[in-house]
Amino acid sequence: MKIGFIGLDNMGAAMAANLLKAGHEVTAYNRSPGKVAELAAQGARPAASVSEACQGDVVVTMLADDAAVAAVTFGDHGVVASLPAGAVHVSSSTISVALAQRLAQAHGEAGQGFVAAPVFGRPEAAAAAKLFVVAAGAPAVVETVTPLFDAIGQRTFVLGHDPQAANLVKISGNFLIASVIESLGEAMALVGKAGVDKQQYLELLTSTLFDAPVYHTYGGLLAREEFSPAGFAAPLGLKDVKLALSAGEELQVPLPVASLLRDRFLTLLATGGGELDWSAIGALSAWEAGGAGPA
Amino acid sequence: MKIGFIGLDNMGAAMAANLLKAGHEVTAYNRSPGKVAELAAQGARPAASVSEACQGDVVVTMLADDAAVAAVTFGDHGVVASLPAGAVHVSSSTISVALAQRLAQAHGEAGQGFVAAPVFGRPEAAAAAKLFVVAAGAPAVVETVTPLFDAIGQRTFVLGHDPQAANLVKISGNFLIASVIESLGEAMALVGKAGVDKQQYLELLTSTLFDAPVYHTYGGLLAREEFSPAGFAAPLGLKDVKLALSAGEELQVPLPVASLLRDRFLTLLATGGGELDWSAIGALSAWEAGGAGPA
Amino acid sequence: MKIGFIGLDNMGAAMAANLLKAGHEVTAYNRSPGKVAELAAQGARPAASVSEACQGDVVVTMLADDAAVAAVTFGDHGVVASLPAGAVHVSSSTISVALAQRLAQAHGEAGQGFVAAPVFGRPEAAAAAKLFVVAAGAPAVVETVTPLFDAIGQRTFVLGHDPQAANLVKISGNFLIASVIESLGEAMALVGKAGVDKQQYLELLTSTLFDAPVYHTYGGLLAREEFSPAGFAAPLGLKDVKLALSAGEELQVPLPVASLLRDRFLTLLATGGGELDWSAIGALSAWEAGGAGPA
Amino acid sequence: MKIGFIGLDNMGAAMAANLLKAGHEVTAYNRSPGKVAELAAQGARPAASVSEACQGDVVVTMLADDAAVAAVTFGDHGVVASLPAGAVHVSSSTISVALAQRLAQAHGEAGQGFVAAPVFGRPEAAAAAKLFVVAAGAPAVVETVTPLFDAIGQRTFVLGHDPQAANLVKISGNFLIASVIESLGEAMALVGKAGVDKQQYLELLTSTLFDAPVYHTYGGLLAREEFSPAGFAAPLGLKDVKLALSAGEELQVPLPVASLLRDRFLTLLATGGGELDWSAIGALSAWEAGGAGPA
Repeated sequence: MKIGFIGLDNMGAAMAANLLKAGHEVTAYNRSPGKVAELAAQGARPAASVSEACQGDVVVTMLADDAAVAAVTFGDHGVVASLPAGAVHVSSSTISVALAQRLAQAHGEAGQGFVAAPVFGRPEAAAAAKLFVVAAGAPAVVETVTPLFDAIGQRTFVLGHDPQAANLVKISGNFLIASVIESLGEAMALVGKAGVDKQQYLELLTSTLFDAPVYHTYGGLLAREEFSPAGFAAPLGLKDVKLALSAGEELQVPLPVASLLRDRFLTLLATGGGELDWSAIGALSAWEAGGAGPA
Repeated sequence: MKIGFIGLDNMGAAMAANLLKAGHEVTAYNRSPGKVAELAAQGARPAASVSEACQGDVVVTMLADDAAVAAVTFGDHGVVASLPAGAVHVSSSTISVALAQRLAQAHGEAGQGFVAAPVFGRPEAAAAAKLFVVAAGAPAVVETVTPLFDAIGQRTFVLGHDPQAANLVKISGNFLIASVIESLGEAMALVGKAGVDKQQYLELLTSTLFDAPVYHTYGGLLAREEFSPAGFAAPLGLKDVKLALSAGEELQVPLPVASLLRDRFLTLLATGGGELDWSAIGALSAWEAGGAGPA
Repeated sequence: MKIGFIGLDNMGAAMAANLLKAGHEVTAYNRSPGKVAELAAQGARPAASVSEACQGDVVVTMLADDAAVAAVTFGDHGVVASLPAGAVHVSSSTISVALAQRLAQAHGEAGQGFVAAPVFGRPEAAAAAKLFVVAAGAPAVVETVTPLFDAIGQRTFVLGHDPQAANLVKISGNFLIASVIESLGEAMALVGKAGVDKQQYLELLTSTLFDAPVYHTYGGLLAREEFSPAGFAAPLGLKDVKLALSAGEELQVPLPVASLLRDRFLTLLATGGGELDWSAIGALSAWEAGGAGPA
Repeated sequence: MKIGFIGLDNMGAAMAANLLKAGHEVTAYNRSPGKVAELAAQGARPAASVSEACQGDVVVTMLADDAAVAAVTFGDHGVVASLPAGAVHVSSSTISVALAQRLAQAHGEAGQGFVAAPVFGRPEAAAAAKLFVVAAGAPAVVETVTPLFDAIGQRTFVLGHDPQAANLVKISGNFLIASVIESLGEAMALVGKAGVDKQQYLELLTSTLFDAPVYHTYGGLLAREEFSPAGFAAPLGLKDVKLALSAGEELQVPLPVASLLRDRFLTLLATGGGELDWSAIGALSAWEAGGAGPA
């Protein structure tokens, strides 16, 4: 397929590279052009503007937040204005339910397809084409772009007609990861202060009821207090928890653990941890218990 | 080995039965004698008193809480007074760190061995001899009673010299399970109110980052809203969260998620859910979001 | 003075009426014109548009939220476009710190004065000209509009040059009121369930350490469970708590009690309490403790 | 009246001194005898044992916690064993509802009177005979000891027959004070980080809706960051919050703000604030927001 790819950060660059490896024709755009050159060395065609990346069958956006996606999508030279009728915008960014609704409507009015397809996985998983893709949109359109998902992930979950459901599920998934970090952080602060070895504790957990990637990955980071360099930086964690809280406000669903997480991220940022991995919130319990802080 | 077994509730009866199956000689005691008769039908020797169950090499106690364990252990005809010197008390109950310390000291002064060996697993796992055993105590003593652990569980984790470390780990593990229930309950309230199917949502989670028994088991109960009959009743969940909070007070470790869980269990009990499974706290988010309550 | 007044809800209508009583010439505008007619009967000159209300020395805006204030202020026929150079916009609405900053900048660029002057007090206090005014802005400009504050309030606190400081203080004050409602609600749920009379309990509190209007007013509503009609409706309470949380995010200050309040308001709205007074969140503790809910 | 007084800490010594000033005959006992000598210099008769202090019409106990009160009351030479039939035990300590029930029962069985009479007020108020007394017990017995309350306080609130109701009200009152400290601490962290002067902010609050002693006293300590010497030390604050939580557990009333307070006190103690005034928990918000901690 002829695919435009907009957004070449850690995650996006790895995804675009896997699209190339799978034989797709990729035209890549990034606000800072250095990343485009790197990908061009792997075979991508560089685009000098958003609209240049919107001349194929599909354009994928993988950007940091709502503002970045809106900036690229709307306006005179944005994705909606540039994409041919019948082409498809695949939005893989973690964005708000509200923005997903706006995107679906705008593309619908322009006679374009829209699929929300956020992904689960850290940069290592993106590089290994092992992401999990959560896709939602009109079934026929989703089917069209499925080869693209096969190239970047190990499995695709198709949710239904409403694109924003995929975004809500992604947001809730990140909330669940953060809640694991927080509760593991509390448990490790507790047993750690009693002298139990944190690595042994984690091995016990992950050999029994908690044998899941989320515990292996984040438990390992916590046990080793390895928060830098950031695989997923703390401000992004805050952004995602705020997306969960906003979705909860829209739907009138109180989320006390998400509220706690929001306060944790603010504490982490306010005390100098803005460049750490988001798992560093899990070290705040030990800090409050009299130990060293993560930052 | 000649093993006394005190406490024949769901969990204890299954563990004692597996000791019998493994060829051990089991003398069983329970406050209400009906349970003793059931086990006697499987080959156990009934004991009419605590002290009668304390005449072998080992006595295992598997009781509901601190009060029950203290009642059985101390006093003129209790375990400490009745057990021969050199014999071992294996305490598998989920009890406080403080009581574990008292037990270790009392048995030490009486020339008896003491091993804390709480277990992870619900009644089904106990019946299938698939428990996880977390054991701590003097290494030589722990070694003596290892055949017993092999008979009831699929794996034993040995932690070190201090028996109470095993209890702290057990307490923290139950706290982690309850925190999974709470955060899953919040996430399901959120996506459920948006119309996402909870079973499909759970399948997505457990196929990806959250592929662990704790998500399969409790996520399934939550998705099916299946809180009765209780595998582990809500008051026991409250008890365990209070044990975590108490341990946190002793060690001066604040535990905000545990604090939230305490309030959740109180709400569940106060609104009529005292006989439900502890996973029912995970339905309180949907209740607060305007849905039906668990009770 | 010649004063334009935009926004004639409960609070605004009472404030405008007191400006009339104090001898000011008031031109009044409201989106739904019925309220204008009522005030015209008390001597106000009706305005058919925002710009018609912006022809005097001062225009006061007293509107529900950020969106309403922005809609009236910006745009071709808004306050900024309509107000003569040198005239002053007094913003008494409870709005975000971010919007206050935008307003200050826009008026500054247009050569107009801007004073943030949010008020404390419920509709009864507004009617009795007993509001407390918290004002901030350029001192010379604040002095100009002080007669206006004297007409509507019992006391004015002048904070300094930055208008948004007044909004932040107002927001934090509403947060403090809500936190009193919540903690009183918890305490009353506790003593009430033990059989202590809530009115007697309140009298004890307000005769001793808690002898302040906030306890008299909200304690009384809670003790009498008198949540309807709403003096200040629950959705406005949620709005204000969200303003506090947003300000906390801007400034990186975690606010755990505000987080709890947010969840309380969502619960109240989700369970049918959207038309109740915001003090009804104080009845949620008794509901969680097994009693009747507020809605 | 002939009054025994047991417990001569800050508060107790001041109360006993006021009983002497009011003309009562006071026999005083304290575990460490230095305090007895000080009071003897003011006219008290020193007692060498608990039982010596139990020979009059009334004995007042004013001790640190449940353990201290139980140690003095029960046992062979305790208050119950020593007090003449018909004499009255006035318990002014802040103790648990559960212990108050035990005391009431034990004194009832011994034919003695029992009045729970906890007090509100810091040491300055005790010295000035300005305490508020909350009394409960059999009305005839309460009447007998009323002259005693008149000598130590500015007002007495009589609650009813059940002594423990007075303890519950006292506990809930201390919870309310701590919740004011926490919410004021959050508000001050917020406005303070924006540059608003905390003293001016407090003056604004206490001139308006928050004009109550609790805001003047604790707001002042927070604005001045004056946490040492402690008028009421942090560990006592933790004790009282735990009493509220325990009462909530008995009555099945969730108390989320109390849960937060518990975690705050643990953080304060764990980070070195164990000797600070309990109001120091109000400085933890500013600490989490990147400022200096209280300790």
